[in-house]
Amino acid sequence: MKDFYLEILHIDKQTGARYGILHTPHGDVEVPMFMPVGTLATVKGLSPEELKSLGTGVILANTYHLSLRPGADLVQKAGGLHKFMNYDGPILTDSGGFQVFSLSENRKITEEGVHFKNHLNGDKLFYTPESVIKIEEKLGADIIMSFDECIPYPVSYEYAKRSTERTIRWAKRGLDAHTRQDQALFGIVQGGEFEDLREMCTRELVKLDFPGYAIGGTSIGEPKDICLKMVDYAVKHLPKDKPRYLMGVGSIDYLLEGIARGIDMFDCVLPTRLARHGALMTSTGRVNILNAKYKDDLTPLDPNCDCYSCKNYTKAYLRHLYVSDEMFGKRLLSIHNIRFLIHVMEGARRAIQEDRFGDYLKLTLSAFGDKRGF
Amino acid sequence: MKDFYLEILHIDKQTGARYGILHTPHGDVEVPMFMPVGTLATVKGLSPEELKSLGTGVILANTYHLSLRPGADLVQKAGGLHKFMNYDGPILTDSGGFQVFSLSENRKITEEGVHFKNHLNGDKLFYTPESVIKIEEKLGADIIMSFDECIPYPVSYEYAKRSTERTIRWAKRGLDAHTRQDQALFGIVQGGEFEDLREMCTRELVKLDFPGYAIGGTSIGEPKDICLKMVDYAVKHLPKDKPRYLMGVGSIDYLLEGIARGIDMFDCVLPTRLARHGALMTSTGRVNILNAKYKDDLTPLDPNCDCYSCKNYTKAYLRHLYVSDEMFGKRLLSIHNIRFLIHVMEGARRAIQEDRFGDYLKLTLSAFGDKRGF
Repeated sequence: MKDFYLEILHIDKQTGARYGILHTPHGDVEVPMFMPVGTLATVKGLSPEELKSLGTGVILANTYHLSLRPGADLVQKAGGLHKFMNYDGPILTDSGGFQVFSLSENRKITEEGVHFKNHLNGDKLFYTPESVIKIEEKLGADIIMSFDECIPYPVSYEYAKRSTERTIRWAKRGLDAHTRQDQALFGIVQGGEFEDLREMCTRELVKLDFPGYAIGGTSIGEPKDICLKMVDYAVKHLPKDKPRYLMGVGSIDYLLEGIARGIDMFDCVLPTRLARHGALMTSTGRVNILNAKYKDDLTPLDPNCDCYSCKNYTKAYLRHLYVSDEMFGKRLLSIHNIRFLIHVMEGARRAIQEDRFGDYLKLTLSAFGDKRGF
Repeated sequence: MKDFYLEILHIDKQTGARYGILHTPHGDVEVPMFMPVGTLATVKGLSPEELKSLGTGVILANTYHLSLRPGADLVQKAGGLHKFMNYDGPILTDSGGFQVFSLSENRKITEEGVHFKNHLNGDKLFYTPESVIKIEEKLGADIIMSFDECIPYPVSYEYAKRSTERTIRWAKRGLDAHTRQDQALFGIVQGGEFEDLREMCTRELVKLDFPGYAIGGTSIGEPKDICLKMVDYAVKHLPKDKPRYLMGVGSIDYLLEGIARGIDMFDCVLPTRLARHGALMTSTGRVNILNAKYKDDLTPLDPNCDCYSCKNYTKAYLRHLYVSDEMFGKRLLSIHNIRFLIHVMEGARRAIQEDRFGDYLKLTLSAFGDKRGF
């Protein structure tokens, strides 16, 4: 796929972190990058223009959710996700593997695919590696994901092995089913917490020569050291010239630790979900905007932030909107949290280019703490 | 108040409708105009920049609601409403008279003021004409309103007379209490449906030489012909060189009939409230976006509208967002409804300047119907 490739421009001498440009059919974006999540073809509350003004490159959308509402056929008829949601930058669709996992009470996995019930009305669904690719082709994102099984944590070695082997077979089936030349289909490395399974999965997927690779089965409750080991196990065997995507993490420590290990792409609902709950990531620590001490606080949310919300509004106003359940409050808080993470990523990219990413990581984590969920 | 005056530039030869510029301390705006309502210092879901891009001039905020949350002292400390909510155009605050009326089960009116219970926690409040002006001075809007009694409809002549006489005394008290030279305090004409009371109230208020006059006690359930008569009764006795504001109406028929009678300013929650309920005013008729027929409709909401929502999104996308309870949907629908009314007002202003407002009124009403609530 000639329109899609990663151009590595610099490797940080302190850590091996990568800086580069990801070329996509909908434009070039810098990596490492954080990708905001727009589950239902909308990053909750924000316009595409706002997202771009925050420095957003790729945004995510969810295959599972969109196939239920409004349906992949409609999105296709509308000219694909880009036109449907008015975002002309690159879009990535996940495969629904994680959603099937999170609906696990109702799922039954066979070699052919997964039977499960949808969360809206309980209707029975059957996803196969081929059917998921067909949906993703209709949605028309630039980057699409293989259908995988997200392995629970903790899990037995035997279960993980059986599941990982099946995920590899599914990846092959998805690749065979995929026909659109303007989409990059990524393979997803599974294998649980087991080094040999992660290695085996990575090696087998690399043989299939995907244009990019994700590390999956992360951010599902495993401790951070386990998650980072999973990354190490996979990265070791991944090709250097292909993009690497660590799925579902969005706290600063994970982002920076991931970058240090050679990861290029991250996604998470964390910044927008936290914002909707009034929890803000700031350069001076976490802010819960509901806290009574902000009632009369006429300073910006984050004095070091350049976002629209911080430049134009006070904590007192943001708290007032939040307390009054005003839509505009959630919008302003979401803008800030997304900008905050993108700002940290911009700093990371500069640090890599200047061979000081190790220092940047240490400084940033000591300033913001090393707590998940920040 | 030298910074605040109405400059009448043209009188429509067909109807007597007025076109002009209202000069305010926060900029000049054209009249006749529709003013969107931002009850809690936010026009629900929209940014100040978006409002301006829609052609908004003055916006409204509510004295009663803001005095409860976040409190007038805080807004004052923040530098007034303009700074607090980041709107540098003109702002108008109502007096709370209408809110006291709508909480009428719990109100007790005396000569001194009104005892009532607030709608948030039932705490007792006591509003006087002076205390309301003090609150409005703290909020710091460009245009502020006298504290009046909104007379119910229908009502006895005796009640209306007693109440109207008191409203006149209150208007005088408010004027005496008002000290800020950068705010224009408007008097509100009451008098119910009775011509002699409307005339008496208008004449008495005009003697007090307010910089502008509102017609109140409208849009509270009275039939349209009664409302328009109330307008006629007052306008006849209002000075030609002062702005005239018909309170609380926002459907096209009322706006245009009001303009034909010499009204310059209107406000209503209608466009934003309808939008949040999925009801859209369009040039091809009312659209309920929930209607199943829009599920696959890939055309814009209104082919004749130039708003951001109509230029960039389809009915199918708007319906998808609305059905999925996505914030961005309510934002896009609100943008459209506000723009639609402002667009009608722009047409009205052009028509007045070209001495064809009578034709414009007839054409527009026959195209859009003559139903309240459109």
